[in-house]
Amino acid sequence: MPFFPLPASDKAELEEGDLFTPRFDAGGLVTAVVTDAGDGELLMVGHMNDEALRLTLETGIAHFWSRSRGRLWKKGETSGNLLHVDEVRTDCDQDAVWLKVSVGGHDATCHTGRRSCFYRSVRIEDGKARLADDGSGAKFDPRAVYGGKD
Amino acid sequence: MPFFPLPASDKAELEEGDLFTPRFDAGGLVTAVVTDAGDGELLMVGHMNDEALRLTLETGIAHFWSRSRGRLWKKGETSGNLLHVDEVRTDCDQDAVWLKVSVGGHDATCHTGRRSCFYRSVRIEDGKARLADDGSGAKFDPRAVYGGKD
Repeated sequence: MPFFPLPASDKAELEEGDLFTPRFDAGGLVTAVVTDAGDGELLMVGHMNDEALRLTLETGIAHFWSRSRGRLWKKGETSGNLLHVDEVRTDCDQDAVWLKVSVGGHDATCHTGRRSCFYRSVRIEDGKARLADDGSGAKFDPRAVYGGKD
Repeated sequence: MPFFPLPASDKAELEEGDLFTPRFDAGGLVTAVVTDAGDGELLMVGHMNDEALRLTLETGIAHFWSRSRGRLWKKGETSGNLLHVDEVRTDCDQDAVWLKVSVGGHDATCHTGRRSCFYRSVRIEDGKARLADDGSGAKFDPRAVYGGKD
């Protein structure tokens, strides 16, 4: 049984009310944006179903729904890099949440070992979209931590 | 015809390569996180299809796919609050983009008139998920700007 009530059909209630009624998409997910509570850096973007969102709010540790693995995912359960949630916010139409977190362990969120998943900028050059790495290094060795899996 | 090439099937190429091959979801969209280029505040979360992403990169003005209206959406086309894009980044698996922007017009991104769409925090109280408004005021009058539509 879902924890969260169905969204209000009234737009004003959804936008200005004090009841959190997340608007899960057709796949049962809301978008979750994760920033560092200290300096505000964008660390990752994930997705949450009803259970992941409830567990995040109840435990103060970020949980997601892994679309690639098709299961609940307590971020950092393997690497130790748990995300301790300082604050959860939602947006006007309640289909996204924002987590301000303190990262445990290696202070790295990306499975590549980097602090943030957003380590590449995009620009169009000669009609093609190219990526430029910002040079942020790995803070842990993914092969050692995940043992070949990630 | 799509502008962006199909994603690499090779994980290393996707994560460490220099070609941008966005991984659109089943609905043809990637998640777009928008922060203020000045102070890093999270302003909004939207979605982009192939065309919105190409136009954003080519013009330097943020374009989205409006899921509610089912059409391309040049953010700020009515309110004048265009998002001027300073930088676009993508994440490790290329299914999300991060726009660092300077907001035009009223320096407000939310259609409610507020600077950010994330004006409410969430917490569980007595077993129910409640919202608390942070008191951020409207920087424009949505009724005057949208004329009853938003």
